[in-house]
Amino acid sequence: MTEADFLRVLRTLPLHPGALDLRDDAARIGPFVITADALVEGVHFLSADPAADVAWKLLAVNLSDLAAKGAVPEAVLLCYPLSDDVWDRAFLAGLGEACAAFACPLAGGDTVSLPPGAPRFLSLTALGRADRSPERGGARAGDALWVTGTVGDAGAGLAIARGEPGPLDLLAAYRRPVPRLNEGRAIAPLATAMCDVSDGLLIDAVRLGEASGLSVAIDLSAVPLSVAYRTHVGQDRPARLSAATAGDDYQLLFALPHGVKPPVPATRVGCFERGTGLSLTDGSDVVALPPRLGYLHGT
Amino acid sequence: MTEADFLRVLRTLPLHPGALDLRDDAARIGPFVITADALVEGVHFLSADPAADVAWKLLAVNLSDLAAKGAVPEAVLLCYPLSDDVWDRAFLAGLGEACAAFACPLAGGDTVSLPPGAPRFLSLTALGRADRSPERGGARAGDALWVTGTVGDAGAGLAIARGEPGPLDLLAAYRRPVPRLNEGRAIAPLATAMCDVSDGLLIDAVRLGEASGLSVAIDLSAVPLSVAYRTHVGQDRPARLSAATAGDDYQLLFALPHGVKPPVPATRVGCFERGTGLSLTDGSDVVALPPRLGYLHGT
Repeated sequence: MTEADFLRVLRTLPLHPGALDLRDDAARIGPFVITADALVEGVHFLSADPAADVAWKLLAVNLSDLAAKGAVPEAVLLCYPLSDDVWDRAFLAGLGEACAAFACPLAGGDTVSLPPGAPRFLSLTALGRADRSPERGGARAGDALWVTGTVGDAGAGLAIARGEPGPLDLLAAYRRPVPRLNEGRAIAPLATAMCDVSDGLLIDAVRLGEASGLSVAIDLSAVPLSVAYRTHVGQDRPARLSAATAGDDYQLLFALPHGVKPPVPATRVGCFERGTGLSLTDGSDVVALPPRLGYLHGT
Repeated sequence: MTEADFLRVLRTLPLHPGALDLRDDAARIGPFVITADALVEGVHFLSADPAADVAWKLLAVNLSDLAAKGAVPEAVLLCYPLSDDVWDRAFLAGLGEACAAFACPLAGGDTVSLPPGAPRFLSLTALGRADRSPERGGARAGDALWVTGTVGDAGAGLAIARGEPGPLDLLAAYRRPVPRLNEGRAIAPLATAMCDVSDGLLIDAVRLGEASGLSVAIDLSAVPLSVAYRTHVGQDRPARLSAATAGDDYQLLFALPHGVKPPVPATRVGCFERGTGLSLTDGSDVVALPPRLGYLHGT
């Protein structure tokens, strides 16, 4: 089944009121925000990726969902397939580094065996505390669309991890993403809608728009690129389009009412309008939508 | 790595105070009890097991950990590998049945793709509410050891699922275990220690003893067997030993102070004493410990 079909059936099951109809990356239960994300070898990470980096990324992608809710990490639970000593020890070292870096302790989980030759499947649940969380669907017509940091770095880093020559800081953006926890906490009280950029700026912006019942207009010329990205990939339209459709950046994408300034460094990349869908410009040029707006699961 | 080695290193990471040093099946975070357990195709379930039963079991094994904490299910999160339409739809049907049967709504999760040919890896996180939870390590010398229901049925059912002829009610005990949620809530205020029987009565009893700094004495002649088990497998010493070392029963195993009666039907199978380890009798006979006390992960 595709992810969309699966979710359609899943929504007919008994849902928790805090599940937000399964249209968000995290649920609200009491004072907590809770999310669960899995990484699969050969799908979300490469077999050659260092185990410590995979552990870091597993924690980072989950905490990024908490960041988008303005939540402070409380604890995580890990489901882990035991394998060989070297990989397991390196994984534990990376997990320890990441838990310390993001001030997030471990609360439990499960260890399992895998059949011989099976790809690793790592899943984590993260629990955070937040007073008020912006939802995905709260944007209003006229709101501006902002993004923290730069995008495209992780996508360029993935090509480097696959063997293309390139700078180490792009590789690090792919292997050791940093969840924007402090930024999320600062933005949450002001934002009408927020999510993290996990699958690509364009597709994640469209999802904010869809959930809010609005169209979104994005100006490619405003998409923030790092110096490393501009040097390695370039900054022409294809390079900017590639950055805007690459996943794994884990920046925060959020809507602010017109005239409200973000409380942390961020770039205005577009706005929400009445209607549906996405319109793309590059300065004054109208740009045709690319065939893929980002990474799609289960397709 | 073995599970024990992995946990030893994991305990050196930053731990949540509610993690109970990772020596229990569930953690306490605020008003909640939280647990995560995974089922792997070819390890915890057979490829031929019906998808609806696998879904049921995934929910049941997690809710069983909540039951051992006397918790009321609040919500679950599911990490699911999308596969073919038929399996996915049957899984969703079984999950819906189980969510309804145990009054446990879904709050979120993640769907992922698997590389072709990879075994299914299903993980679930369950959150429950409990005022007071017995821990694994609270038993005192002189406490009696009790178990709800009957044991061995699921182990006999596994042999049937693997092709041995046998009655359907034993097969159902393996494929559709029932977490003892009501029993757990009734027992929790009285028990000094409690866990569920997931890996086998003997090994789970030893774990209660170890966590409590005590030895445990079990009388095989008291181990409760179902009519179906007695008819199909027998009730001689090997049959009782087999029942006491089989996993997947998901009954509750708990310690009550001497003289305290359980508030639900249960069988007294032994007691806690000063010392360490396990001593086994069968009525008045001393019995040698079997080479395996139950199912061991990651070994």
